[in-house]
Amino acid sequence: MASTLFSRQLALTLQHNLRLTAPGCRYVSKTATKTVSEFEYDAPSMKTEVPGPRSKELLKQLGEIQNVGAVNFFCNYEESRGNYLVDVDGNRMLDMYTQISSIPIGYNHPSLLKVMANPNNMSTFVNRPALGILPPENFPEKLNESLLSIAPSGMSRVQTMACGSCSNENAFKAMFIWYRNKERGHNTPSQEDETSCMINQSPGCPDLSILSFMGAFHGRTLGCLATTHSKVIHKLDVPSFDWPIAPFPKLQYPLEEFVRENAQEEARCLEEVEDLIVKWRQKGKPVAGIVIEPIQAEGGDNHASPDFFIKLRHIARKHGSAFLVDEVQTGGGCTGKLWAHEHWGMDDPADMVSFSKKLLTGGYYHKDEFQADKPYRIFNTWMGDPSKNLFLTEVLNVIRRESLLEEVTRSGKALLEGLYALQAQYPHILSRARGQGTFCAIDACDDVTRNKLMVKTRDRGVILGVCGERSLRFRPALVFKEYHVHQFLNIFNDILAEHK
Amino acid sequence: MASTLFSRQLALTLQHNLRLTAPGCRYVSKTATKTVSEFEYDAPSMKTEVPGPRSKELLKQLGEIQNVGAVNFFCNYEESRGNYLVDVDGNRMLDMYTQISSIPIGYNHPSLLKVMANPNNMSTFVNRPALGILPPENFPEKLNESLLSIAPSGMSRVQTMACGSCSNENAFKAMFIWYRNKERGHNTPSQEDETSCMINQSPGCPDLSILSFMGAFHGRTLGCLATTHSKVIHKLDVPSFDWPIAPFPKLQYPLEEFVRENAQEEARCLEEVEDLIVKWRQKGKPVAGIVIEPIQAEGGDNHASPDFFIKLRHIARKHGSAFLVDEVQTGGGCTGKLWAHEHWGMDDPADMVSFSKKLLTGGYYHKDEFQADKPYRIFNTWMGDPSKNLFLTEVLNVIRRESLLEEVTRSGKALLEGLYALQAQYPHILSRARGQGTFCAIDACDDVTRNKLMVKTRDRGVILGVCGERSLRFRPALVFKEYHVHQFLNIFNDILAEHK
Repeated sequence: MASTLFSRQLALTLQHNLRLTAPGCRYVSKTATKTVSEFEYDAPSMKTEVPGPRSKELLKQLGEIQNVGAVNFFCNYEESRGNYLVDVDGNRMLDMYTQISSIPIGYNHPSLLKVMANPNNMSTFVNRPALGILPPENFPEKLNESLLSIAPSGMSRVQTMACGSCSNENAFKAMFIWYRNKERGHNTPSQEDETSCMINQSPGCPDLSILSFMGAFHGRTLGCLATTHSKVIHKLDVPSFDWPIAPFPKLQYPLEEFVRENAQEEARCLEEVEDLIVKWRQKGKPVAGIVIEPIQAEGGDNHASPDFFIKLRHIARKHGSAFLVDEVQTGGGCTGKLWAHEHWGMDDPADMVSFSKKLLTGGYYHKDEFQADKPYRIFNTWMGDPSKNLFLTEVLNVIRRESLLEEVTRSGKALLEGLYALQAQYPHILSRARGQGTFCAIDACDDVTRNKLMVKTRDRGVILGVCGERSLRFRPALVFKEYHVHQFLNIFNDILAEHK
Repeated sequence: MASTLFSRQLALTLQHNLRLTAPGCRYVSKTATKTVSEFEYDAPSMKTEVPGPRSKELLKQLGEIQNVGAVNFFCNYEESRGNYLVDVDGNRMLDMYTQISSIPIGYNHPSLLKVMANPNNMSTFVNRPALGILPPENFPEKLNESLLSIAPSGMSRVQTMACGSCSNENAFKAMFIWYRNKERGHNTPSQEDETSCMINQSPGCPDLSILSFMGAFHGRTLGCLATTHSKVIHKLDVPSFDWPIAPFPKLQYPLEEFVRENAQEEARCLEEVEDLIVKWRQKGKPVAGIVIEPIQAEGGDNHASPDFFIKLRHIARKHGSAFLVDEVQTGGGCTGKLWAHEHWGMDDPADMVSFSKKLLTGGYYHKDEFQADKPYRIFNTWMGDPSKNLFLTEVLNVIRRESLLEEVTRSGKALLEGLYALQAQYPHILSRARGQGTFCAIDACDDVTRNKLMVKTRDRGVILGVCGERSLRFRPALVFKEYHVHQFLNIFNDILAEHK
C-alpha cells in the first residue's frame, strides 16, 4: 500500500513539475530517459518511515554494544544495487551520500562480484600479509596496475595504509623526517636525538608543526586531529599540539560572479599563511608541512580557486615547508578528474597526496625525497590490505571502460544547474549552490531547515549528506547518471514546494 | 637437488640429535609424531638462500615504489599452508613469526576458504559500509558471535577499528573524554571549551596525559607514538607529548628462581608510577589513563607478575586514572588464554582492552562508562570492516572446535622446555628463555649473534622474529603443535652446535 501511495505521489510530482516552466526545470523532461545498466533498480521505493520498525529493533540491539547516536538505519547490502541502497525494512533509496563518499561504483557492481568469484583471488582475502616485510608476489604488479596507474603528477611512489587517518598520520611523519634531515644536512641522528626521542623530548622529538586551515578535516587520530578544525565534537577533550591554523577563504558563490571579491579574500588568507609560518618559526616550532583539502568537505564544502592553491604551493616551497594535499574525500573521480588537484593545472601540484575512501585502501603518494631514509620509520603490521588493491584495480577498469569521469562531469553539470534553478526558485530556503563534478553542495537558510530537508528527502527515497553548519552535500557514486540527477531534483523540488 | 641435500641434512640432524641425552633433548624422540591436519605440509623444504633470486628481482621492482629495507622476501600465499609459508623461490618455511603475530590459524585454513566460497558472504566483501551510520543487518549478531563471545571480564561493549594504532588512538580519546566529564561533573562543555578546542588550546584541548612504560609499544601514529618507547627508529623526528613514562620491571629469568628480587624490582616500578602520577598532576597535566601491554612484545618480550598488574590496576583506580590493557599482540590465544590478562585472575582487570592482529580487526572493549556520551566523538568513515568479523567468527569456531588454547599451552610448554634445555647446553650463546603459551622468547649474547641466528635459522627453513636489543621472539599460529616445536628445536639445535 505504501508503495501504491508512493507511485501516486510520484505521478502527482511529475504532473506538478511539468507545469513548471522556469529554466531550472528543464530536467523534468528528462525523467523518462534511462540508460543505466540492467542490474540496477529504476527508482526509489519507500515502504516505511526511515528508520523503519526493523531498523529500530536493531538499533536497540546495537545500542547494548555501542553508542548508536550516529546510526541512520540498518542496511540490506545484499539487495542494494548500483545507486540504490536498500534498508532492512525494504525501503529502496537513491544514495547520494554513498557511505560518506566511499563507494566508488555503486553497490554490488558485477565487476566486483567477479573479483570475488575468481578462485585465484581467494588467497589474497584469506591470508592478510604484513606487507612491509612479506609482500605477495604480485604486490608490485598490483600497485602498478592500480594506484600507480593514476599517480598524481611528479609522484612515482606510493605507500598504502589501512585508512585515511593512518594515511595522514604517516604522511605527517614523512614530512617531519624529511624536514629534520634537511635541517641536519644529513640523515644521521645525534646521540642527543636518540636519547631524547625515547622520552618524547626535543631535539629527538622536535618542536615541529604542521600548518592547517580553519574548517579543515584530516582525520580524528591525535596527529590528524591537531590539523582538523571543522566541528567542536571532533576535537573536544582531546589534547593537541600548538600548531598554526590559517583562515580558509570564505568565497561568495557562484564563483564567476564574485571574481574580484574572492581574489581579495584569497589574498588575505595567503598573507596570513605566510605570517603564521614566520611566527611559528620564531616561536621555535617551524612549519615542516602544510596540509590542505582541494575542497574542504566536512567543514562545509568550501572551495578556493586554482590560483589560491598555486600560490599556496609556491609559499610552501619558498619557506621550505612540505605541501600535502589531502584527497581522502575529493580523490577517486567525483570532481570529474581522478584527483581534484588536477583542476589546478600544475605539473608539480604537491609533495604528497593522501587518499582513502573511494580508493578503497588508504595511503599516500609522494615525491622521491619524501621516502623515509630507513626501514621501519614508516611502518605498521598490515600497511594496507592487498585485497582492497584487487578491488581497486577493477574499479579503475570500470572507470575507464564506462568513461565514468565524463559521466561525472555530465551528471555534475546537470546537478549544479538544477541546484542553481532551485535556489533561484526558493531563495528564502536555498543559497550558495556550488560544486565540481558531482561533488556539490547547497546551503539551507539555517541548520534546522537543513536537517529537516535532509530527513524529508530521505523519507521520499533520496539519501543526502550534511556538512558545515547548514550545508547539504552530494556525494553520489561515479555511476550516478543524469537520469538519477533528475530523479533527485524532482523529489527535492516537491519537498521544497511543500516546505513551510 | 637442493631438496635432496636438505633431506640428507635432516637425516644427519636426526642422527645427531638422537645421540644427545640431556633432558632438554627429549623432544627429539617426538619428531616422528605428526597429528596435524592433512592439508598441511610435513616439513620445511629449502631450495635457495632467502631471499632467493625471484625475491631479489621483485625487491628491485618494489624498490622503485617504496622503501624495501624491511622486506624479508616475497611470498607465494597461494601455496602456503597451515604453519608453512612458501616463498616465490619455492622455499617452504615453518613460520614462527606469522606476519608479526597476525595469522591466527595458519595459512589458507580450509574453514576460512569456506567463508570465501559462501555466496551469502559476497556482499560483505564487496560493499564496505560506513559502520557508524549504516551498519548491515547482521552487524549486532556478528559482533555477538565474534568479539562479544570472548569479551574480557566486566566489558560488554566493543568498538571495532581498522588497525591496532587506530584502536589505541580511539581508546585514548575515550579515556580523555571520560576523564574530562568526570572533572566537570557533567558532560556539557563550556563556551570556552568549545571555542578553545577549535584552535587546539586548553581547556577545550586539555593538558591531559597518558602514562606509559619504557620499552612499551602501542603503535606509531602520533598519539600512540607518545606512549611507545621501544626503539629510536620508531620515534625519531616526530613531535610528541610531554607525558609520563614509568620504568617497566626488568625481571630475572626463570621467574620462579628470582621471586624475591623480581618482587623488589616490581615494587620499585610501581612506586615510580605513583610518583609520576602525582608529579604530572602537579605539572597541570593529570594522568587520564595508564596504558600497558601484559607482556611487552616489541620492547623485548618483557614479563611482569600478575601481582604487578593487580597492584598497577589498583593504583590506577586509586588515582582516578583509566586503565587500558593493550592486547594487540598478546590477545587471541597465543598465551594459552584468549587474553593474556586472564592470567592475572582478576574480575575487573581493566577499563578498556584494545586488540588487533590475530583478531583480524582492530578495536577495543570497554566498560559502560567509557562509551562516548555523544555520537561522532569516536568515529571515522569505516569503523572497522565487517568482512574481517566474518573471518573472526570462523577463527573462533576453529579455536573452540580444535581446542587450540589447550594446544597452545601444550606446544608452549614443549617450546619453553626446549629453550631451557638449549640455553643450558649453550649458555655462552643463549639466556633468559621466557614465555607464556607459545608467546616465547630467548636472548642471544649480543645483537650480531641474534641476527645471525635468525638468518641461519631461516636458511634452514624456520622463520623467527626479533625484538628488543638481542631477543629472538616466537609467535607461531595457534595451530602450531608439539610436532612443529620439535621440528624447530632440531633445526635450531644444529645451528647452535655449528655456531662459532
